[in-house]
Amino acid sequence: MPRSDSASSRDNLWQEDWDNENRSTHPRSTTYFERPSEPGERPYYAEDYELSPDLEEWSRSAHRHRLRPHYRDGDTIDWWHEDASERERWKGLVSQHGFRGLIAPFIDVIKLWFVIIFTGICVGLAGGSLDILVIWLSGLREGRCARGFLWSQVECCAGVESGQVCHDWQAWGKYLGIGSIMGQSLIHSFAYILLSMAFAASAAILVVSYAPYAFHTGIPEIKAILGGYVFDSFLSSWTLLIKALGLALSVSSGLSLGKEGPLVHVSCCMSFLFMKLFSQFHRNETQKRKILAAAAAAGVSVAFGSPLGGVLFGLEELDAFGGDFDVMWRGFVTSVIAAVALQYVDPFRTSKLVLFQVTSGSDTWLAFELIPWLCLAVIGGVLGSFLIKLNIAAAVYRRNSILHQWPILEVTGAATVTAVLSYLVVFLRVPSSDLVANLFQECDPQRIDFHGLCNPTAMWENVFLLVLTGLVKIGFTAWSFGMMIPAGIFLPTIAIGAALGRAVGLLTQGLYRAYPKAWFFSACPPDPTVRCIYPGFYAVIGASSMLAGVTRMTVSLVVIVFELTGALSHVLPIMISVMVSKWIADAFGPDGIYTSWIALRRYPWLPPFEFRDNGEIAGDAMTPLSNLIVLQDGSSLRELQRLLETWDYHGFPVVQDGILLGYVVREKLKSFIEPLLSESGGATRICGFRGPHDSDSADLSPLLEDAMQLRKEVPLELVVNMFRKMNLRHIMFSQAGTLTGMITKTDIVALSTANFAHRGALAEERTIERT
Amino acid sequence: MPRSDSASSRDNLWQEDWDNENRSTHPRSTTYFERPSEPGERPYYAEDYELSPDLEEWSRSAHRHRLRPHYRDGDTIDWWHEDASERERWKGLVSQHGFRGLIAPFIDVIKLWFVIIFTGICVGLAGGSLDILVIWLSGLREGRCARGFLWSQVECCAGVESGQVCHDWQAWGKYLGIGSIMGQSLIHSFAYILLSMAFAASAAILVVSYAPYAFHTGIPEIKAILGGYVFDSFLSSWTLLIKALGLALSVSSGLSLGKEGPLVHVSCCMSFLFMKLFSQFHRNETQKRKILAAAAAAGVSVAFGSPLGGVLFGLEELDAFGGDFDVMWRGFVTSVIAAVALQYVDPFRTSKLVLFQVTSGSDTWLAFELIPWLCLAVIGGVLGSFLIKLNIAAAVYRRNSILHQWPILEVTGAATVTAVLSYLVVFLRVPSSDLVANLFQECDPQRIDFHGLCNPTAMWENVFLLVLTGLVKIGFTAWSFGMMIPAGIFLPTIAIGAALGRAVGLLTQGLYRAYPKAWFFSACPPDPTVRCIYPGFYAVIGASSMLAGVTRMTVSLVVIVFELTGALSHVLPIMISVMVSKWIADAFGPDGIYTSWIALRRYPWLPPFEFRDNGEIAGDAMTPLSNLIVLQDGSSLRELQRLLETWDYHGFPVVQDGILLGYVVREKLKSFIEPLLSESGGATRICGFRGPHDSDSADLSPLLEDAMQLRKEVPLELVVNMFRKMNLRHIMFSQAGTLTGMITKTDIVALSTANFAHRGALAEERTIERT
Repeated sequence: MPRSDSASSRDNLWQEDWDNENRSTHPRSTTYFERPSEPGERPYYAEDYELSPDLEEWSRSAHRHRLRPHYRDGDTIDWWHEDASERERWKGLVSQHGFRGLIAPFIDVIKLWFVIIFTGICVGLAGGSLDILVIWLSGLREGRCARGFLWSQVECCAGVESGQVCHDWQAWGKYLGIGSIMGQSLIHSFAYILLSMAFAASAAILVVSYAPYAFHTGIPEIKAILGGYVFDSFLSSWTLLIKALGLALSVSSGLSLGKEGPLVHVSCCMSFLFMKLFSQFHRNETQKRKILAAAAAAGVSVAFGSPLGGVLFGLEELDAFGGDFDVMWRGFVTSVIAAVALQYVDPFRTSKLVLFQVTSGSDTWLAFELIPWLCLAVIGGVLGSFLIKLNIAAAVYRRNSILHQWPILEVTGAATVTAVLSYLVVFLRVPSSDLVANLFQECDPQRIDFHGLCNPTAMWENVFLLVLTGLVKIGFTAWSFGMMIPAGIFLPTIAIGAALGRAVGLLTQGLYRAYPKAWFFSACPPDPTVRCIYPGFYAVIGASSMLAGVTRMTVSLVVIVFELTGALSHVLPIMISVMVSKWIADAFGPDGIYTSWIALRRYPWLPPFEFRDNGEIAGDAMTPLSNLIVLQDGSSLRELQRLLETWDYHGFPVVQDGILLGYVVREKLKSFIEPLLSESGGATRICGFRGPHDSDSADLSPLLEDAMQLRKEVPLELVVNMFRKMNLRHIMFSQAGTLTGMITKTDIVALSTANFAHRGALAEERTIERT
Repeated sequence: MPRSDSASSRDNLWQEDWDNENRSTHPRSTTYFERPSEPGERPYYAEDYELSPDLEEWSRSAHRHRLRPHYRDGDTIDWWHEDASERERWKGLVSQHGFRGLIAPFIDVIKLWFVIIFTGICVGLAGGSLDILVIWLSGLREGRCARGFLWSQVECCAGVESGQVCHDWQAWGKYLGIGSIMGQSLIHSFAYILLSMAFAASAAILVVSYAPYAFHTGIPEIKAILGGYVFDSFLSSWTLLIKALGLALSVSSGLSLGKEGPLVHVSCCMSFLFMKLFSQFHRNETQKRKILAAAAAAGVSVAFGSPLGGVLFGLEELDAFGGDFDVMWRGFVTSVIAAVALQYVDPFRTSKLVLFQVTSGSDTWLAFELIPWLCLAVIGGVLGSFLIKLNIAAAVYRRNSILHQWPILEVTGAATVTAVLSYLVVFLRVPSSDLVANLFQECDPQRIDFHGLCNPTAMWENVFLLVLTGLVKIGFTAWSFGMMIPAGIFLPTIAIGAALGRAVGLLTQGLYRAYPKAWFFSACPPDPTVRCIYPGFYAVIGASSMLAGVTRMTVSLVVIVFELTGALSHVLPIMISVMVSKWIADAFGPDGIYTSWIALRRYPWLPPFEFRDNGEIAGDAMTPLSNLIVLQDGSSLRELQRLLETWDYHGFPVVQDGILLGYVVREKLKSFIEPLLSESGGATRICGFRGPHDSDSADLSPLLEDAMQLRKEVPLELVVNMFRKMNLRHIMFSQAGTLTGMITKTDIVALSTANFAHRGALAEERTIERT
């Protein structure tokens, strides 16, 4: 894309102009040669390199990676290049003389572990504090503590046994001394709906005004960033602050959304902040990503109280460790430390990490139960897939309607509708986390019955309410996930699944009570008063199935579910339900919710699956030589300068008589030739990329970088898998040394999302330009 | 290596002659050109290709991968090539006309899932049956069931409550009606020692006589195989049979070894057997490995009753899924199915997957306990590292002493020594699994005391016995792991750790009972009769620390430990102990036990960690052009034939005037030119690798394969990481198209194990030549 476009598009929210975008969409067009350069424009990249004045020393130096390109948001990083620059830095450290050479590498490692450990501690503390804030804000919708306004319900009732009524906690009606039941009802519904609206509106105002990147879950973006996408403003301090505050507000507003995904974003922002302290991370894109991977694991660890699940989420869903077990190990450490910090805060005053303890009376299960569980798995797969499709439809509709110009109004409206409808159905009214916690628990005469859930005579009413709750929540979630507020999809999905699962459990229990001697229940005692079926565990199965349908995670999902619930003895049915649900959901379309959003946003991210072509070879997808801008060895400096002015690709292949010599990064070339051009007669000097041609020519050999070379007859499949596994930015194609074409990551991403109907539907959103 | 060597070394157990071995050890020697070919020798590879007689059609075909090389044991597979051949096969399937084209891909997928599901079922059933066999055999050393000789102790005592004495089970003394205590003791010790010897000797005889590959754990070999090493005889049906039988015998013999690692080998053999039914797996090395990865996961799943641990073991320790989540997903399914099958067999009659249930009374823990647990983590790290070094020393000593000529005698002798010493110490005498199960359990007045472990007055005696047990077991294990019997190291490591952990737990408990009011115990109630410290959980921490020190696993280890023990509530201290233990152990040397054995055997396997060079470039490690055998475009067929007769490298680079054209696999070239040579005047025909030169020349272009090309100035680090991530076999180095050198996986493996002291110490073992 010529410079004239790109300078003005710098502030766009969802820029499409990562390099060579045009090339990939019109691979055989030749319009690139037509646009002339416009002199006097401001330069495209920052130019803050410190150049060595002695060019002779430059050309002798074996270190060809001294200059690193500065990326701007929307670029794709060059992993080779960044790794090389880190290598150089490390070698520089260890080769220092004397004491510094001994101590410097040691300090370097200390810095690394400082960032990792400090990130872990801060993420744990922040997660715990957010939990406390959410409990307090949510509680405000119902009432206040007699001991003081700032006491949350949990703190207020801390000493009260679980079977007892907490007298210190006063509903608004009681607190305001309203006697009539009618008046109490009115004041309750009024406070509930009004505060819901207020919380949601404040969250939206914060996000829209100060940090538009703080909206949504953040996981698609984190996936893209970990895969090499440059998006530093997504991790800024403002985003951190607004996302954390907005998250507490939006969760408390009663909208159908969770805090789990956004916590991953929050923890990545936090580690990004700490990284800024040390140039070794801040200035190297691969090092940055390795730390971010560990921070993301810590985020999940804190969100679910699941340190192991965090590591596995990083591994499976974020694909964050790139097969490097050193990086995984760091994620493991960060995750553990964050969980320890969370347990230290202990926001729920349970002294436990397990959030939603299953209190099943039995740790064995019966074979016939697999039948209702398989039904739940099928339901989870179908509804999960449906939820994704509904959510995409809602997002695309919002984008194309007038709604996307009034995001604050939309959020407030949605909060009002949610609050009004929720107030009518008891299971919708309570916060999702309370609902899930109670759906997972078995009925126990010692405890207060959760809104009549344990009343055996009201089975049909409960089943109806639960199914209604599940279905309404699907609608709410599909709409809410994508509005201009921080919103995670994990908790609502769990709530939907748990409601449906509990309903199936109640039905099975009812069937057993009605026909205790049927052959189907022969494994149970024939006495229906003996407990044989535990509906709480059905809720767990429902939740895992629904999660599998929505996220398509496998191993990490199972671990998160049993770290959430403590239901380790039932790991087999959980695994089976996840397996079946994923199978069913995959039949409706292979993309999980996060992958779908990546495709909607058109981020350059490659899925971690083998790509299968239909017989195409690389030559079919590459940009052929005729459409490439190449540098010729032996060009004059002026020719190079004009080329640089015209084209702002990330870099250019260098050829000599058609033979590929290597690749030169635009910014390095630019900073290298500028001082030469300013010399008298510099413009006419001949450039030698393989060393000086004669005494007068300029030696550009230090700039030349290696490029991966293949022949264009290579199957496309192989090229795609190489990009994925090696984190490449581009591959050159050559035949007996002669350059024939080139392919970039953007081309590959376009290939792999070619089948997605709404690809890029949200990529050009420009509503918010205040960043 | 010239053919003269290789043909005779075909039967060697540990062949060193995977291709280019010599090149890598003497990279700059030129002796390769000196050895003449010896005509009349039998061909090196099998030649059962079906060649298309129409060479014209060949040269027009775009499919260049029709012929696949046949590998023999000791080779490293070419992943590119195998993937390409699978691609061709798949395209052939879907491009069939009519009904077959529709149904064939479907049947293909059915076959895949048949193998996966059937492997899962069989592994689960086999694991369960082995457990039953082991219980029966181990029981025989102590006595027999009154109901019948074939009843195992578990079956015999199935109905008896855990607190009761089982009267049907009769010790030998009682069964034979011996009255005197002296006589009973004699007959007991006699039966115990004699049967131990007999079992161990039978296992050794079986292994030595029928399947020498069935010895040891098998995990290093599986790791190498999954990494691309060809070792089909390691997975033969005989090995399967002998490994399974020998495993039951060796475990029952009371030697310090476990069944867990070998079960992974057994399940891989099993899936290899099923794969033979379908050529799509049997004939493709990458497909084969993808199924083996799933089978390995199922093996661990069954060994520990840990379906999730199985998948993660495959991921972390075996590095089996290569970042491909489709393959991981298959492993997940196989693992679940195997666990279901195991639970169906229910060998321990507990209806549970959890093998060593922790029965801690509390699911919270106290902060001060971290201090003894950290001590345990340090002990685990130090002793784990020590165990590895001791085991290597023992293996190297065995290899260089006369012992390795008398393997059966050695095993019998070791079994005798183990049995005699074990008989004297009560915790050594019981089978390791019983010991571990009881060490993990809390003392409970309802249950029979396990050999006085719960006697509070005998604390010092118990601590002494436990520490003694741990230390003696370290010695036994270091020796036994490597003898000519199937032997895993997991269970003995757990037993050592559990014994030491319980000892530390007893000490802490004793301290608390002595000073209940000390500030250190301020979190406990000041009344020492209230239970506050649970030594059973200390045993779990000890076991995890020891395992982390020996295997250096992290995430998968944690999952396996809590799937084994059910101690999910204590996941944080388990993770912390694993973390600290691994840190400590890594300080003594980075290699775990399996990695050490891989280096001892010199298998071509690359560790999944970033390699860091010291400033070397690829050019320093590559074989330069002057030492390479290259094919010249334009050579005559006779010249090619002579080259093939002299050299048996896997393949050759092809150049034209120094410019690299591609790579040709030896076997493909051979089968291609043989019919041409038999024609009259064929030998003088000129070969064109880029198409025919003129009407008389032979067109060898269908043979030409792509080769990864880089410049030799690339940092070595990058080359190593490329080999690892892309599963490459070789990389070519070129400068502006001109070939400058080549590097193979063997060279890279030699680089990465250069620091290991005993590298290849066991690589040439030729004691057993009966395979």
